[in-house]
Amino acid sequence: MVDLLDGKKAAQLADQEFSQRINDLKLMGITPGLAVILIGNDSASQVYVRNKKRRAQKVGINYQLFHLAENITQTAVLQLINKLNHDPEIDGIMVQMPVPPQIDAAKVMNAIAVDKDVDGFSFDNIGRLWSNNSGNFPATPRGIIRLLQQYEISVAQKHVVVVGRSNIVGRPMAGLLLNADATVTMAHSKTPNLAALTKQADILIVAIGQAEFITADYVKPQSVVIDVGMNHDVTGKLVGDVDFSSVSQVASMLTPVPGGVGPMTITGLLEQVIILAEKRA
Amino acid sequence: MVDLLDGKKAAQLADQEFSQRINDLKLMGITPGLAVILIGNDSASQVYVRNKKRRAQKVGINYQLFHLAENITQTAVLQLINKLNHDPEIDGIMVQMPVPPQIDAAKVMNAIAVDKDVDGFSFDNIGRLWSNNSGNFPATPRGIIRLLQQYEISVAQKHVVVVGRSNIVGRPMAGLLLNADATVTMAHSKTPNLAALTKQADILIVAIGQAEFITADYVKPQSVVIDVGMNHDVTGKLVGDVDFSSVSQVASMLTPVPGGVGPMTITGLLEQVIILAEKRA
Repeated sequence: MVDLLDGKKAAQLADQEFSQRINDLKLMGITPGLAVILIGNDSASQVYVRNKKRRAQKVGINYQLFHLAENITQTAVLQLINKLNHDPEIDGIMVQMPVPPQIDAAKVMNAIAVDKDVDGFSFDNIGRLWSNNSGNFPATPRGIIRLLQQYEISVAQKHVVVVGRSNIVGRPMAGLLLNADATVTMAHSKTPNLAALTKQADILIVAIGQAEFITADYVKPQSVVIDVGMNHDVTGKLVGDVDFSSVSQVASMLTPVPGGVGPMTITGLLEQVIILAEKRA
Repeated sequence: MVDLLDGKKAAQLADQEFSQRINDLKLMGITPGLAVILIGNDSASQVYVRNKKRRAQKVGINYQLFHLAENITQTAVLQLINKLNHDPEIDGIMVQMPVPPQIDAAKVMNAIAVDKDVDGFSFDNIGRLWSNNSGNFPATPRGIIRLLQQYEISVAQKHVVVVGRSNIVGRPMAGLLLNADATVTMAHSKTPNLAALTKQADILIVAIGQAEFITADYVKPQSVVIDVGMNHDVTGKLVGDVDFSSVSQVASMLTPVPGGVGPMTITGLLEQVIILAEKRA
């Protein structure tokens, strides 16, 4: 029988810890501040932003949403970021992706002060991650590391295969794992014979955006499988990149979708905000 | 029979190309300028710096050495970097490693203007590499990519195993390979069963600093092996991380030491300087 890596439960445990840490900060007169910039009316983005708000406010973070019009100019976005960079009450700033075409995402992300770049998408923070320095690192990989820690799964000396090489998940995930002494294989859409590689993984992390792509044939018996996917199947049901029914027959531990990596992504973000606020103490 | 990947020859070919590109630049009144900062009297560093000078001057680069005293202050180094950052004749600045203990290497490297950071060791350039953006990238990985190109060895869709995770070789090498559509495994000193992994490599790149560590048992038949090592064996002879005599029986192509990656590292540096100067045109 497969054991579930319950992200919802792990996120609740993390929230308890976060509430305590924020209480300690408030006793010192510090309230962690998170500014979220949402541009336009993408419906998925609105859901993500709402979920962040709920979780942030629950643990006591001062959550500020800046909802800008779809046709806002890049100059106006940069001015807002500049203002927030200088706001002593704001510890973290993030821009919800995707942004409309008139906005240069890389430029906007690199305009956020390095210390307030909670998403860790700026070149500077990516460089810090890959040179194993301290810095701000992306929420989803952070959340996955925390989920593994919660279940006492060490990555050191394990062979971890990461499928998918996005800037948001695959690449920073590989970097964090390498820094934690894992042997890491980075596979992607151009990888031939994918199953031959993934079948070697002690821990398999899948972030490819293809519904139920990873079946039991891709999985080493008794391994740990982390499913970062969020797709809708033909019936409209939310499913991961992993075929839960077959993989659960082979893996020893597996994240469900929903209730696996999703809640932990917000945990990763909140943790980063709190760490930044604690630097004010 | 193994074919040698002749870095000396490839570097000579590259130098011919570089001389031509620099002649074209000089017709426009531009001479590529490289500033090398050497601190103290480390004898290996002096050899490296001398080799760079010879190759740079041979292709027509304006090479300027700033040889600072072992006990120089960090402030003085930062002042020199600041001056060079603003010198329009200087396209690239590098600090020869290692630096004495009173100098913070990371601080010094990040003080170099991003556009002039020829070594690509600043956080910003590392971030550009890992997000697959344009930027300046480290000389050794650049040189290895060029060596493979010279021999028409494509990395796309190949499984490349990189052994060693230094900031100078292993990590940036993995990033460049991933960007070029290779499947990349990052292995290192904490990797168990290393041979089982390296034996799967279509291309094996070794940068671990252990004399003749990789024997035929670690190598897939007919694969390509790149040896970044520079060690002295018990007799004082210069040897790589790869046991040349046994691996040459198994691999299809192999870099010798010396005369393999070494000359191509300087090629990688010179190429980066020329690219920066061409941006002035």
